[in-house]
Amino acid sequence: MKIGFIGLGIMGKPMAKNLVKAGYSLMVNNLTPEPVEELVACGAEAGTQREIAETCDIIMTMVPNSPQVKQVMCGEEGVGAHMRPGTIFIDMSSINPVASKEIAEELKKYGVEMLDAPVSGGEPKAIDGTLSFMVGGKQEIFDQCKPILEHMGASVVRCGEVGAGNTTKLANQIVVAGNIMALSEAMMLAKKANVDPQLVYEAIRGGLAGSTVMDAKAPMMISGNDKPGFRIDLHIKDLNNALDCAHTVGSPVPMTAAVQEMMQWLHAHEGGSKDHSAIVQYYEHLTGQKVSE
Amino acid sequence: MKIGFIGLGIMGKPMAKNLVKAGYSLMVNNLTPEPVEELVACGAEAGTQREIAETCDIIMTMVPNSPQVKQVMCGEEGVGAHMRPGTIFIDMSSINPVASKEIAEELKKYGVEMLDAPVSGGEPKAIDGTLSFMVGGKQEIFDQCKPILEHMGASVVRCGEVGAGNTTKLANQIVVAGNIMALSEAMMLAKKANVDPQLVYEAIRGGLAGSTVMDAKAPMMISGNDKPGFRIDLHIKDLNNALDCAHTVGSPVPMTAAVQEMMQWLHAHEGGSKDHSAIVQYYEHLTGQKVSE
Repeated sequence: MKIGFIGLGIMGKPMAKNLVKAGYSLMVNNLTPEPVEELVACGAEAGTQREIAETCDIIMTMVPNSPQVKQVMCGEEGVGAHMRPGTIFIDMSSINPVASKEIAEELKKYGVEMLDAPVSGGEPKAIDGTLSFMVGGKQEIFDQCKPILEHMGASVVRCGEVGAGNTTKLANQIVVAGNIMALSEAMMLAKKANVDPQLVYEAIRGGLAGSTVMDAKAPMMISGNDKPGFRIDLHIKDLNNALDCAHTVGSPVPMTAAVQEMMQWLHAHEGGSKDHSAIVQYYEHLTGQKVSE
Repeated sequence: MKIGFIGLGIMGKPMAKNLVKAGYSLMVNNLTPEPVEELVACGAEAGTQREIAETCDIIMTMVPNSPQVKQVMCGEEGVGAHMRPGTIFIDMSSINPVASKEIAEELKKYGVEMLDAPVSGGEPKAIDGTLSFMVGGKQEIFDQCKPILEHMGASVVRCGEVGAGNTTKLANQIVVAGNIMALSEAMMLAKKANVDPQLVYEAIRGGLAGSTVMDAKAPMMISGNDKPGFRIDLHIKDLNNALDCAHTVGSPVPMTAAVQEMMQWLHAHEGGSKDHSAIVQYYEHLTGQKVSE
């Protein structure tokens, strides 16, 4: 069995390396040559997208967003049109689940089955092979591919049919963004009311207000640390997909729209490369006071 | 030493009982006679507010909100004006921290020191004596009163000067409300996108999206259970105080305003006696679909 891997970015490169280490025969492709050379040095083979389409049994993509997946896979010149019937496409990018379904629909014409399998965990877990996969697709295709994904992830969960992986990822990103906004609002109020945010954090973290976001991000807000972690611009991308998806399926997302707007403001004023916990800086800008001061 | 206890409601009654059990001499007062009789049967003494003011060394209140605390404590006919210099007032009600400071200021005139000491944990923890106290006031007064509060609470944390207890409580309630809103929005989106909310919950609870709210409330939303828990109308009261306080200190609270509006809508349409996780019903009403169906 031969695996094709398209997209060797910050996430894709270490993920592909883990597959080579696990002993799979890998053909890789990327827009820029350096990560391809790195993978070839590890034992992978370089190939064009067409070569990957024509020779691989399972093809994976790890690219920025829905348009990039469509560009690679769809249309007469796309990878999908040149895959052999019975082969499998696994998209591990975080994209709009509506796009996942559209791509799966097109691939059906070529006899190709698809899983959408976005991940959470970021670069460190990509390197360690301990990502969390949220997967959508047919049960039998999932069962067949799970052992491969397990070389890149500590948790591989099927959430439903195609699109369910990315829907779950969007639900995750909505909750994370909302929890950061709630924490920011509470920390800022404490600061403006002259109460030490550190003491507030310590007093409430053990109760119903406690969360993984609170334990990860409150110390960053309190110390004024905005190094990523997870970048604002990536979270904006995910929330744009969440809003698109919500509009398509008819689900109201007023909180997501509000926090996305805060992130957009931050992106315009500060750039998108800070940690997403920098949402607190939206509040700090409005009050002229820093939680960390 | 004699303790006065004013306000024997759902929370106050079991809290007062725990003080009697701990061996304190207690004089109690309440608007209605039944809980007073119950406390007298346990070994407490009944008294008017004036008798409590004139004979007790520490006086505690556990009443609904800022106006009730002011009504009991302030003005020429209030308890404060008849307390002896050197005695202590502990308000355990959840009120506006701005009001706490105003009351403390007035009591200073009579030589009375004050702690604001709101609690979280609800009736079950009031009965068990395992509440969490968030306390504001002078360090020496806190040190003196902490052993008494520890008969009612498992955790007694000083967060700063007078008002800091209620500010911390408001921060807590902001985070809880925001986390419930975020969870509701994510669960509804999953449902409308035809992905099983239970699978979404299981897939994301272990990651950055995980929270105490998620583990407590997602199963309630998924099963359609809206029994309190913590009632919507009490959370509305707390968020009204949060908005008041935020406006006074000049801290922006757009998320708190949005979720408070959802709770107000729910109160108008469904009454205020459901669990605060019923915020999800705002989304369900808009989509015409239940997360639990």
